[in-house]
Amino acid sequence: MVFTETFSLSTRGFCHIIDITGNVAKVADRSGVANGSVTAFCPGSTCSITTIEYEPGAVQDLARVIEEIVPSNVSYEHDRRWGDGNGFSHVRAALLKPSITVPLLKGKLALGTWQQIVFLDFDNRARNRDVIVQVVGE
Amino acid sequence: MVFTETFSLSTRGFCHIIDITGNVAKVADRSGVANGSVTAFCPGSTCSITTIEYEPGAVQDLARVIEEIVPSNVSYEHDRRWGDGNGFSHVRAALLKPSITVPLLKGKLALGTWQQIVFLDFDNRARNRDVIVQVVGE
Amino acid sequence: MVFTETFSLSTRGFCHIIDITGNVAKVADRSGVANGSVTAFCPGSTCSITTIEYEPGAVQDLARVIEEIVPSNVSYEHDRRWGDGNGFSHVRAALLKPSITVPLLKGKLALGTWQQIVFLDFDNRARNRDVIVQVVGE
Repeated sequence: MVFTETFSLSTRGFCHIIDITGNVAKVADRSGVANGSVTAFCPGSTCSITTIEYEPGAVQDLARVIEEIVPSNVSYEHDRRWGDGNGFSHVRAALLKPSITVPLLKGKLALGTWQQIVFLDFDNRARNRDVIVQVVGE
Repeated sequence: MVFTETFSLSTRGFCHIIDITGNVAKVADRSGVANGSVTAFCPGSTCSITTIEYEPGAVQDLARVIEEIVPSNVSYEHDRRWGDGNGFSHVRAALLKPSITVPLLKGKLALGTWQQIVFLDFDNRARNRDVIVQVVGE
Repeated sequence: MVFTETFSLSTRGFCHIIDITGNVAKVADRSGVANGSVTAFCPGSTCSITTIEYEPGAVQDLARVIEEIVPSNVSYEHDRRWGDGNGFSHVRAALLKPSITVPLLKGKLALGTWQQIVFLDFDNRARNRDVIVQVVGE
């Protein structure tokens, strides 16, 4: 059985990291699937999905390290060609990748106690975003 | 329903980044699956799959950042033991990981408008590569 | 068909990298599934799963690069708030992500010849860990 639903987010961009665990869990609930896998996917080339302990310190640490690995204040070829100034956003999204898959066990996401699913918006402006949640199971 | 097909690529190595969206979409088409998930996986320890806006600037930016994170011109323990000179390739592939999962909705990959699926060959020589595409759905 | 099993690991923490290919393959065997996808997922916010050629040189190289990208000896906001000293572990786990999906073909994991599935424990102490393996297929 396959169940798919999309939800929307308003983000501030600039590595805005949002806890979407509740949104994903609600789709899993509505699917009626007991056991299977849940994939959350962001259709976009300047955003990613991963997991982290969602407390302000760890979230700030992640954003700082991403800024160090892929700085926003250096020159990107993408920007020279397209002038939209978000070359760093594209590189970050390609490194972090757009999806996460979490097992669903007896109707519950099999996350650790301190592990939340997060959406990262790397773009250089506020955005409205869709996240596709797909449950495959029985 | 599970449908699996493999396609082949000739690559130049050295962080050669190839748009494989069309190859993956063709397998999804042939699967006859309407709704489900599509996983593209590279069986190999010196290559990866992710998504990016496939335009030359962003692709060049990604390659540059990967070179900065995992330089090809420093010494690797792998090379001291095996002498094949591709220690950097192994580290890059482990960080970027070998697969991507994309939802399939009404027979279409649920990618963003500017989001393509890409194969990254990190090896230090030209290679012939297989990519396994697996569709699970109904 | 969905088949799920959990196995346990004892780790030393501090970027201890463990080959879990055999553990994952055993679950795939017991599932009785011939063709489908196998997801290995770690429920925890300080560990990750990826693939690498599991030889001591490449494993040491990966650990060194991770230490360079996310150093263990700098200050993290997470540590200031919680005092558990594993801010670096959380950031590493968020970047490397908690799961891997590998196709299963005729009952065999479709890994490359030199490609193993590895668990990375980024925490700052020894841990007992669970890994959830889920097989979806037919």
